[in-house]
Amino acid sequence: MTDGSQDPTARDASPRREQLSRRGLFAAGAGGLAAGALAGVGGTLAAQALLPKDQGDAVDASRSYPFYGGGHQAGIRTEPQRHCVYMTFDVDAGSTAADLQSLLARWSAGIAQLMKGRPVGLVEPPRSGAVAQDTGEAADLGPNALTVTLGLGPGVFDHRFGLAAKRPRLLRPLPALPSDNLQDGLTGGDLSLQACAEDPQVAYHAVRDLARMGRGTVSTRWTVMGFGRASAGPDQATPRNLMGFKDGTRNIRSDDEFREFVWLGDDADWMSGGSYQVARKIQMDIEIWDADEIGDQQTVFGRSKSEGAPLTGTREFDTPDFRKTSHGEHVIAPNAHIALAAHENNGGVKILRRSYNYTDGINQYGQLDAGLLFIAYMNDPGHFVRLQTRLGSYDRLNEYISHIGSAVFAVPPAPEPGHFLAERLFS
Amino acid sequence: MTDGSQDPTARDASPRREQLSRRGLFAAGAGGLAAGALAGVGGTLAAQALLPKDQGDAVDASRSYPFYGGGHQAGIRTEPQRHCVYMTFDVDAGSTAADLQSLLARWSAGIAQLMKGRPVGLVEPPRSGAVAQDTGEAADLGPNALTVTLGLGPGVFDHRFGLAAKRPRLLRPLPALPSDNLQDGLTGGDLSLQACAEDPQVAYHAVRDLARMGRGTVSTRWTVMGFGRASAGPDQATPRNLMGFKDGTRNIRSDDEFREFVWLGDDADWMSGGSYQVARKIQMDIEIWDADEIGDQQTVFGRSKSEGAPLTGTREFDTPDFRKTSHGEHVIAPNAHIALAAHENNGGVKILRRSYNYTDGINQYGQLDAGLLFIAYMNDPGHFVRLQTRLGSYDRLNEYISHIGSAVFAVPPAPEPGHFLAERLFS
Repeated sequence: MTDGSQDPTARDASPRREQLSRRGLFAAGAGGLAAGALAGVGGTLAAQALLPKDQGDAVDASRSYPFYGGGHQAGIRTEPQRHCVYMTFDVDAGSTAADLQSLLARWSAGIAQLMKGRPVGLVEPPRSGAVAQDTGEAADLGPNALTVTLGLGPGVFDHRFGLAAKRPRLLRPLPALPSDNLQDGLTGGDLSLQACAEDPQVAYHAVRDLARMGRGTVSTRWTVMGFGRASAGPDQATPRNLMGFKDGTRNIRSDDEFREFVWLGDDADWMSGGSYQVARKIQMDIEIWDADEIGDQQTVFGRSKSEGAPLTGTREFDTPDFRKTSHGEHVIAPNAHIALAAHENNGGVKILRRSYNYTDGINQYGQLDAGLLFIAYMNDPGHFVRLQTRLGSYDRLNEYISHIGSAVFAVPPAPEPGHFLAERLFS
Repeated sequence: MTDGSQDPTARDASPRREQLSRRGLFAAGAGGLAAGALAGVGGTLAAQALLPKDQGDAVDASRSYPFYGGGHQAGIRTEPQRHCVYMTFDVDAGSTAADLQSLLARWSAGIAQLMKGRPVGLVEPPRSGAVAQDTGEAADLGPNALTVTLGLGPGVFDHRFGLAAKRPRLLRPLPALPSDNLQDGLTGGDLSLQACAEDPQVAYHAVRDLARMGRGTVSTRWTVMGFGRASAGPDQATPRNLMGFKDGTRNIRSDDEFREFVWLGDDADWMSGGSYQVARKIQMDIEIWDADEIGDQQTVFGRSKSEGAPLTGTREFDTPDFRKTSHGEHVIAPNAHIALAAHENNGGVKILRRSYNYTDGINQYGQLDAGLLFIAYMNDPGHFVRLQTRLGSYDRLNEYISHIGSAVFAVPPAPEPGHFLAERLFS
């Protein structure tokens, strides 16, 4: 198992470098809102002036990642791309272990092609009576940093396929969690595909064509199309969620953290180098949130909105001081989001978050329907359960969010050339 | 009125240059699918190899367009950006002409800020009891070529506001059209906002914050979030719709065409320099389409799938020959999509298409739910009615598509500095 050999994210991700770069850009962008140009806005925006283009905003359509080798599947440690199509599938009644094996072999070959920016087969077969193997809508777009990450749900290891003995040790359906508001059509699945790319059409094409290859063996279950980058790569400013706050400042970055919290070790048998994936569709009541006072919003998160600094500091990457008090009160409330989520307050536990924003348009009340496609990777789903049990019970954010979708998957390691995903499951 | 002074799309958009560039890239990308790498795919892909990055795939987050001046609103002739959030609104019962006037003034000031990459107000007000004026999620993202284009629906000129005398001459609700399958929640609106940008979060933020500014005066009606580029700019390869076919090869490009078919002339009074916008949400049965033979798909469109050449030619930009026959049959069927839509067969009429792909996830049958957000601009909505009357009646494509959403709007000209959108409506 080689840690970080596959992804450019293995480069030094020094927060200091990030900060310096951001400060320089702040200075360059000063000036902000033209005074008086907008009715109702007096004064200047000061540090709220917008950042001009920085390196992290460049999109390279020709960038591609390897599918084979490196120990871990791409799409976990990979620098977050701008778009994500996440879909889960159920194995059809009557499908056998051999059908599942065949699908994983075909999906692996297809994913390897897609990640090179190639179609999964002929877009325009020479015989007019033939049906195209690839649907064609990504035919001129390049790889766009596509990664497709496969997950195996608990159902793969039930009575149906004779694979119970191979069940990853910690894979079981998530327990009911405080503040769950799950909708039937947005939970579970025997398989998951997370397709991330710099171009949404490339990500959509990948999932569409893999779903098509799966017809007769699996059926679609639920899906979310996400945008933005709710986790920061080394060259990226920390992205913002649809509450307007930075999300991912304290995310996992180092080799050591990945080894300790994300990757399964050599004792995990055929899953060695793999991980577990937890997906949650989290609806945000953004119109209610938007009406909240800035002071309360910042108390809810425990951070300032513009800079993203902990309320005990002045810069985004300052370490929060959860014990600091003022006038007898904690400066960061114990039930602030970052306090409840912090590893310092959870026995040192960290998980890798790799989330995306989503919108479902307008709801039945005419309000904007939007939220977060939360995707996290960890070597023990119990870590998520532990965190969410506390967050779901006490988080001040709960007033504004609702967990409506949920699923958990085992994420097998990357196959070596000549092999396919989860091949050892069948041997 | 200065034609093309505002947009870089006024540059020479020679199809020849485009073709040469594309041919070069095809050669560079040859090799295609590794033989045998994918089960079931024999041979090579030949000309179906994917194009590597080309100039048109670069995203420049710092690019911005002017809101004021130039005669026409941005977002019409502007080189299509990668993302679009389209939303319509109804004026609330009890709102007056003065309320509408105030909203258009405030929206204009807000749009001018947003298009510069600036927030519409304070993201983090200094007083903790204040509510932020900007929701903040685009606070680090730059302008990303954002354009926001406002439309006024027929309802603005009904009995409510005393503005009937100012009604744009050709603005009235679209008539019922053949093959309409409209859903109540996806039609009409008193106002429309089309926000297009290279970053979806920037486009979403713009519409969200404008909708927020409108609370108390207008309510949301329907929305679509689109991706891809279904119309070709001068430096862009022709994008593909979710049927895998190129869409926009014969789109309007030249100054003469814009003058003749898009912009309203000096006889249009306060609407001079404006246009009309027709929006249609077109659902595609993509899973049924994907099962169709390639020969039939090409007959339906009248073009080849990979190259996008008319069936009477070999290159994308070859002019279709609708009279050519072979063995007594038309080579391009008279009811092929491009035959029914062609200006040669519609008394010379052309419209500017500026469409985006969309996905709504999975439908109740477990099938992929996706389609086209068709947006078109023209100086006479009757041109769309004429085209769609024929297409809706005879188009072979009707077997695979369904028009589920529809609206029409008058698009006023851009305001000069110091003024606001549709200001002359109130004088």
